[in-house]
Amino acid sequence: MSVLVVGSVAFDSVETPFGARREIVGGAATYFALAASHFTRVHVVGAVGEDFGPEHMAVLERRSIDLEGLERLPGKTFRWSGRYSYDLNARDTLETRLGVFETFNPRIPEGHRSPGLLFLANIDPDVQLAVLSQVKRPRLVGCDTMNFWIEGKPESLRRLLAQVDMLVINDSEARQLAGEASLVRAAAIIRAMGPRILIVKRGEFGAAAFDNAGPFAVPALLLESVVDPTGAGDSFAGGLMGYLARHAAAGEISGRLMRRAIAMGSVLASFTVESFGVEGLLHLTPEQIDQRFAAFRELSHLGDA
Amino acid sequence: MSVLVVGSVAFDSVETPFGARREIVGGAATYFALAASHFTRVHVVGAVGEDFGPEHMAVLERRSIDLEGLERLPGKTFRWSGRYSYDLNARDTLETRLGVFETFNPRIPEGHRSPGLLFLANIDPDVQLAVLSQVKRPRLVGCDTMNFWIEGKPESLRRLLAQVDMLVINDSEARQLAGEASLVRAAAIIRAMGPRILIVKRGEFGAAAFDNAGPFAVPALLLESVVDPTGAGDSFAGGLMGYLARHAAAGEISGRLMRRAIAMGSVLASFTVESFGVEGLLHLTPEQIDQRFAAFRELSHLGDA
Repeated sequence: MSVLVVGSVAFDSVETPFGARREIVGGAATYFALAASHFTRVHVVGAVGEDFGPEHMAVLERRSIDLEGLERLPGKTFRWSGRYSYDLNARDTLETRLGVFETFNPRIPEGHRSPGLLFLANIDPDVQLAVLSQVKRPRLVGCDTMNFWIEGKPESLRRLLAQVDMLVINDSEARQLAGEASLVRAAAIIRAMGPRILIVKRGEFGAAAFDNAGPFAVPALLLESVVDPTGAGDSFAGGLMGYLARHAAAGEISGRLMRRAIAMGSVLASFTVESFGVEGLLHLTPEQIDQRFAAFRELSHLGDA
Repeated sequence: MSVLVVGSVAFDSVETPFGARREIVGGAATYFALAASHFTRVHVVGAVGEDFGPEHMAVLERRSIDLEGLERLPGKTFRWSGRYSYDLNARDTLETRLGVFETFNPRIPEGHRSPGLLFLANIDPDVQLAVLSQVKRPRLVGCDTMNFWIEGKPESLRRLLAQVDMLVINDSEARQLAGEASLVRAAAIIRAMGPRILIVKRGEFGAAAFDNAGPFAVPALLLESVVDPTGAGDSFAGGLMGYLARHAAAGEISGRLMRRAIAMGSVLASFTVESFGVEGLLHLTPEQIDQRFAAFRELSHLGDA
């Protein structure tokens, strides 16, 4: 089953206590697609500017990601710059320049209007809605959002949430969206808005999930070295959706498969944060992924009852 | 196997967004002993002042905790007051009055100098050392400490750490003690100081452990309502040591038993934070504990390989 993702392709500039990089290829759709590409065919819908050259395109092409839906528009590519302190869970955004995303109106190529799975990465909820209206209902629609849209476009966001199966957001954003400090209560409120599956990203502390199969929580892998957390959440979503796409048989996606998919999301995120930018996702082998999945399983294994 | 704990017995005053309590019975040894008492016989070594009346003593007596080593000294009982905001992971200490702990010189009663397990709760490391020197080597010695002692008595703390098997501390304290931001690297540094087992408490995000069996991490239970986090860490340690005391056979304590003990620590901590003070620990039934242990196992269960 294939995955279609719509979201940003960007130039990121990051500073962390362990180094800095300027104008490297990033963006939510990029991290998502590179992570998911280890499991299935990925189609990207997004936009870049005239400054996005063949050498930048090559980053995505190397993993055989389908770029038919990546439009090149007049103007500049989306740029984001941020800084992390030693507490890598928090970051300061230094600058955001939307560039071609200011007027981006997504068009799904004819051949990709029946995706197996669809992920609406963090982007204007009106753009997410525009994508949703162009596709034949996929097996599962996942989406991400952020505080900026929760505050700035609450009505569009509500319309969107009523139509998605799964929402993947940060801990603090879940509480903000629900207006409720207790995560368990916030989850019930958010699920009543539409998504039957809520997945909460908790940075270095892992992830929690709420669906009809009951609560699920996993720690993150304990890594010796984390140099750049940028893209961790999008890699998590990409690993998760890619794994679902590869392993979901016909019918309902089981709670059991979803748990493994969340674990695989954590595995892909762990590779991302060990290097700057997307470097950690480019040269992974299936063996490295399997090994770390086994380590993840062992990490919180309690033994038999 | 019995557990001996040395630590504070106190009057706590707490304010949280969900209410407040004044001068309720608290202290590290109290929470530890109440949690451990659900699994084994517990002996408390500590001190209270003349203001600690029979009604306060009754809190500990109700769970058949042995109080022969709890001295009543001239002066006032240790008092602590603190405030929590909606982020229940952080707290402000408003006041600490040591009272009888200012000059406390622990004496282990004759009959308790060969404890099965010993826990040195957070207290002056010189007091922890004085206890250790009075006992015949237990099967396992665990201890806790805090930033105040890491900064104020580094040499005594180092002498202590060289003699303990297990250190149970907070995430930020582990990084501070090691002088290292990476938790994995910090764990290696701390284990080189003495304790072969390091257990890191992460509040609402669970716990991580480092021992010869490899890294282990668990999320915390997802609770609908947390009203007062005071004593969570001490209840965690009490549940953990109590479970070990009940289930450890002769010989080395296995990594597998340790994992279950950590899970049981998490279970006892979860009962503590749902009510003010020690209320949540007083009336638990074995069935309630077993049920929540099963829920904990289910929470992060990934299914078979």
